[in-house]
Amino acid sequence: MNFIEPLNATSQLPVYRQVMNSVVDAIRNKQLKKGDRLPSINEFSREMSIAQGTVLKAYAELKKDGIIDSQQGKGFFVASENTQRSLNIFLLVDTLNQYKEVLYNSFIEALDPQTTIDIYFHHYNIKRFEKLIVENLGYYNYYVIMPHFNEDVSGILRQIPSDRLILIDNEVHNLRGNYAAVYQNFKDDIYQSLKTGFPVLKKYDFLNLVLPKNHRFEFVPDDLISGFKKFCSDYKIKFKVYDFLDVKKIVIGNAYLFTDDFDLVTALKYVNLQNWELGKDVGLICYDDTLVKEILAGGITVISTDFKQMGITAADFIKGNKRGKIENPCTFIIRKSL
Amino acid sequence: MNFIEPLNATSQLPVYRQVMNSVVDAIRNKQLKKGDRLPSINEFSREMSIAQGTVLKAYAELKKDGIIDSQQGKGFFVASENTQRSLNIFLLVDTLNQYKEVLYNSFIEALDPQTTIDIYFHHYNIKRFEKLIVENLGYYNYYVIMPHFNEDVSGILRQIPSDRLILIDNEVHNLRGNYAAVYQNFKDDIYQSLKTGFPVLKKYDFLNLVLPKNHRFEFVPDDLISGFKKFCSDYKIKFKVYDFLDVKKIVIGNAYLFTDDFDLVTALKYVNLQNWELGKDVGLICYDDTLVKEILAGGITVISTDFKQMGITAADFIKGNKRGKIENPCTFIIRKSL
Repeated sequence: MNFIEPLNATSQLPVYRQVMNSVVDAIRNKQLKKGDRLPSINEFSREMSIAQGTVLKAYAELKKDGIIDSQQGKGFFVASENTQRSLNIFLLVDTLNQYKEVLYNSFIEALDPQTTIDIYFHHYNIKRFEKLIVENLGYYNYYVIMPHFNEDVSGILRQIPSDRLILIDNEVHNLRGNYAAVYQNFKDDIYQSLKTGFPVLKKYDFLNLVLPKNHRFEFVPDDLISGFKKFCSDYKIKFKVYDFLDVKKIVIGNAYLFTDDFDLVTALKYVNLQNWELGKDVGLICYDDTLVKEILAGGITVISTDFKQMGITAADFIKGNKRGKIENPCTFIIRKSL
Repeated sequence: MNFIEPLNATSQLPVYRQVMNSVVDAIRNKQLKKGDRLPSINEFSREMSIAQGTVLKAYAELKKDGIIDSQQGKGFFVASENTQRSLNIFLLVDTLNQYKEVLYNSFIEALDPQTTIDIYFHHYNIKRFEKLIVENLGYYNYYVIMPHFNEDVSGILRQIPSDRLILIDNEVHNLRGNYAAVYQNFKDDIYQSLKTGFPVLKKYDFLNLVLPKNHRFEFVPDDLISGFKKFCSDYKIKFKVYDFLDVKKIVIGNAYLFTDDFDLVTALKYVNLQNWELGKDVGLICYDDTLVKEILAGGITVISTDFKQMGITAADFIKGNKRGKIENPCTFIIRKSL
């Protein structure tokens, strides 16, 4: 029974699910193959000092999932190496919003519908982030984590075995190792987007980046700000970075880049009130495309990563038990607002 | 130690959290009061047959939360009856979307930031709904549940003790008992809204309700449809109910009521293409207000429940350990689109 990992009394997972995961992991790591015999309930119970009923429940669940089967005289054996439906996935994201909806739906649609995904939110609180990871260390098969912090969280993430870790949306520069990641290249994405937009952008006197630091739950990567500054300096565009939106700072002849929809709507209302024409008097760009931005105020110019693709890539890592670092595709869509 | 409930080996919660919850529940039910002595770690461990380390961990966490304290010679005792920060809440909603974001944020903001909230999604799958509830029965302090089904789920919900159950957003007609609920009165809300809009509505030849039955994840309460029909019949308005949006059915002189933002945007694009004037050639109403609907296409008329208030009401039930059935406020906002 060398495939069984020691059980964790303080794990969030009940013991029978820990037992299930041990078997599933052994199959995924090729320690167990199709046809291999499993320990009897008696043997398992004795060796690991857990109740026979607990082992029975775990075996019954695995049998229901089609992963193991039993035969008179032969006992329990591995019936299928397709373990997807028995996977337990720990998904830790920043907060609930409509971009997460796209990502989450494409992620779960790409996985087996039986896969168990427990979702947690860290709300940009680094202590909560660490607590959630530490409390749940142990017996999830995969840890899919959105590390939205400008602080260094590599020390926290190093506690997760690299073959179980999948980072999404944001890179962690100081984290080495053979884990999986699908992320936005915030610095390069904004640089290349604005470069594409340069022929339109150059008609404005100033380009202003507006951060949402007055909102409660927000994270803007330092890389995004430095990519913005690099573009403006390389292309000799006068710029300012505002920590938050003050509509009185919106003036004719300027372009504004928002990372937050709330600020975009506030700015649009103000521009309407002034009877200014978008894309002529004032230019607007916003992060992250949505259905509505295509038609809002005649169309909002966006810099947008493909959250649907990000969910699919993350699911592919799991389905193929693969690793790798993949930059998520980003598009710049010029619409009437610029 | 009559306040300790028997532990549940198949619970999702680790044993030390079950121990914590037993103490917290005893305080909330007034079985334990400030100053009362708790069993020693030894006594607790012996009587409940659990490891001393597990009891120690539970007591240490409760001490960190300020709920219990220890003194030389006196042992452990209840230090505070404010147990909010040690609560574990099971939150089961339909799916992730932007209305849930408002509800979720107002709910957590109204609770102590230390409260543990585990969120689950049923995706309108009744088997998944039942499985999630059954698997997590036992040691959560509260079960906050959005029962978005037209099928009868009262049998499933009856498994949850009524003093731990809080229903949100939707009623369950067949469920009796002294549980808490804050819900939309779908039938009356649509009736009263359309009644308010009647002076504007009557200029249209037809009022069409468009359901989103072609989308994957959607739920429209039967009560909403019957409230719509009742209004049209009482006010002698010709109407149709469509299962899904076919833009070719959008014609001049008609008004349309959508329950889904995707359909709204699709219809808006079509109306633009035809060069029709909103609120004159064609009228549009949509469910659920968002920031953007205020300015989209000059303003979209909405029927909207107050999700922020719903989150606050649900949190109030928990904070005050109260029960009751509360209808959530609904507003009808007439904008340019009608």
